[in-house]
Amino acid sequence: MSELRYSYLKDTWTVIAPERARRPNDYAIHVYEEEYGDIKKCPFEPGNEDKTPPEVFAIREPGTAPNTPGWKVRVVPNKYPAFRIEESDKADFYLIYDKKGGFGAHEVVIDTPDHYKHIQDFSIEELNYMYIAFRERIKSLYQDLRIKYVQVFKNHGKDAGKSLVHSHSQIIALSKIPKKPDTIIKQSRKHYRKKERCYTCDEIKAELLDGSRIVYENEDFLVFCPYASLFPFEIKIVPKNHNHDFTMVDGNFLNNLSDATQQAVRRLHKALVNPPFNMILYTSPPIRENHEDPNYFSDIEKFFHWHIEILPRIFPFGGFELSTDYVINSVLPEEAAKFLREVVI
Amino acid sequence: MSELRYSYLKDTWTVIAPERARRPNDYAIHVYEEEYGDIKKCPFEPGNEDKTPPEVFAIREPGTAPNTPGWKVRVVPNKYPAFRIEESDKADFYLIYDKKGGFGAHEVVIDTPDHYKHIQDFSIEELNYMYIAFRERIKSLYQDLRIKYVQVFKNHGKDAGKSLVHSHSQIIALSKIPKKPDTIIKQSRKHYRKKERCYTCDEIKAELLDGSRIVYENEDFLVFCPYASLFPFEIKIVPKNHNHDFTMVDGNFLNNLSDATQQAVRRLHKALVNPPFNMILYTSPPIRENHEDPNYFSDIEKFFHWHIEILPRIFPFGGFELSTDYVINSVLPEEAAKFLREVVI
Repeated sequence: MSELRYSYLKDTWTVIAPERARRPNDYAIHVYEEEYGDIKKCPFEPGNEDKTPPEVFAIREPGTAPNTPGWKVRVVPNKYPAFRIEESDKADFYLIYDKKGGFGAHEVVIDTPDHYKHIQDFSIEELNYMYIAFRERIKSLYQDLRIKYVQVFKNHGKDAGKSLVHSHSQIIALSKIPKKPDTIIKQSRKHYRKKERCYTCDEIKAELLDGSRIVYENEDFLVFCPYASLFPFEIKIVPKNHNHDFTMVDGNFLNNLSDATQQAVRRLHKALVNPPFNMILYTSPPIRENHEDPNYFSDIEKFFHWHIEILPRIFPFGGFELSTDYVINSVLPEEAAKFLREVVI
Repeated sequence: MSELRYSYLKDTWTVIAPERARRPNDYAIHVYEEEYGDIKKCPFEPGNEDKTPPEVFAIREPGTAPNTPGWKVRVVPNKYPAFRIEESDKADFYLIYDKKGGFGAHEVVIDTPDHYKHIQDFSIEELNYMYIAFRERIKSLYQDLRIKYVQVFKNHGKDAGKSLVHSHSQIIALSKIPKKPDTIIKQSRKHYRKKERCYTCDEIKAELLDGSRIVYENEDFLVFCPYASLFPFEIKIVPKNHNHDFTMVDGNFLNNLSDATQQAVRRLHKALVNPPFNMILYTSPPIRENHEDPNYFSDIEKFFHWHIEILPRIFPFGGFELSTDYVINSVLPEEAAKFLREVVI
């Protein structure tokens, strides 16, 4: 018997259809075979810094110069950007159609100098470097008042859209808030206006009370499979205490974020034998004076709760998902969580 | 230089980023290798009719009985349905979450008795059978007043979500209109209210005037690559004269639809060497008396224009597409159309 579960923040329905499913163990067939290619040609390799545009951020060993080896994490503009600061944001038309220039930014975070390391291999320190790079670039990009939204994500594995094998994440900055984060903001605000409570804080309380979808927790973070998971084995990482702004992560709070991330990706990696996945960070846009819609942002710190999603890409979307926005998920989130909780890493 | 193109009917922006692209020819590496499996075990094989639930529609050779061989096209309920007429539509809750039963219908159209034939191999007559099955099932499902929307689609190739290799399409009937068709309806209505013209009729006029995105046309149908194509080599098939309801297809109009479809899928198949794709049919929901929002539907025949989309699945969506609703398409629709137009089939 299938069941429709509503994702409040996304305002979508997921069809949980476990009769279509195999057992969790049977999903562990999706081995992602890495093809490491010719390391000498890899543009993300230490020594090949001239194969990328000049770096905009790096954490480096003392005394090493920009765009030379010695970095722990390195951020560069994408060589083939979908968005560029130099392009126009001006609206234009062609025949009956509307168009715009590709204004924005598109950067690549080279997570590690090691060609053979992937996120499931990262130490807490290495995960910290990655998150510090995210934090510093988000802060820097929001200095530009034309930038209204920054999206950070990672594609892990070819079936999740990764092109170069060397571990990297991507940052895209845009002049408007896209539909999905906009829906999250609007739904969070709606809940807050009605109840004077943060929706995600309510979700955390409900999940802790119930327990069946929890994968892992530490002092600061909860790792769980969302009730209306769109993807089999979907994982959400949230700070337990209300916090709207990812760029505040630092110190022991950052260590705990890296610990929660390490637990999530290692469990997923072990349970499903290196499945492809996307990692997505949703954090609050900045509060700015003179924003065109001040009402929208003035108290966003009260209702927005930053979070990370890990979306395993075991099956491709079919025509139903593409045509309707409904998603069919054949794995019960409760079973996925149990399986991930019990994996020995 | 990338360019953002607005899809009016979908209310989304596509980022056309041709600098990220290879030449059209280079996309022809996505060979979908069929694994035909054990034909004796195939539930869609003539002689194996007892391996599916009893048929709800078939076109048969005279004198053959239901659920026996002799059919040209056969429609059966899905053995592992995501939606079922027997389930409840009643709203319920669990913790803080909303849920519902999986009310609806989920059917499989077995397009052909031939295990080894795919849509690009179908004759006009065979395509007619497939479309007649769609037409008759849509009409029948809308007899149930609880059914508010019917979605027909085909997954071709594993990377497009196909599970069984024997050619088939799917029909899902739902108790509400999902977001994507709802957006198409609302946007079409908005345009009509303002201009007293059908948006898709305007689109057809603009495309015929411009010509650069046209792949093929016959007396009744236009085949083109949409201006804001979400997918590389996306194709749209539309009736040239205003028509809101697919279920009216018959006679020579049906022959011409099958001709346009054959041209589209054969060109795509030849150009990209059997790429995976989804085929999606958007047709008007029925006009009914006593609908809860009569305004919504009362004149839908004036502004809704039925159409078919063919969405090649050459690259998977990455984290950016999943997190924002923006889509990056690295192939200019004008180049895709030229390539498809010039293919000799």
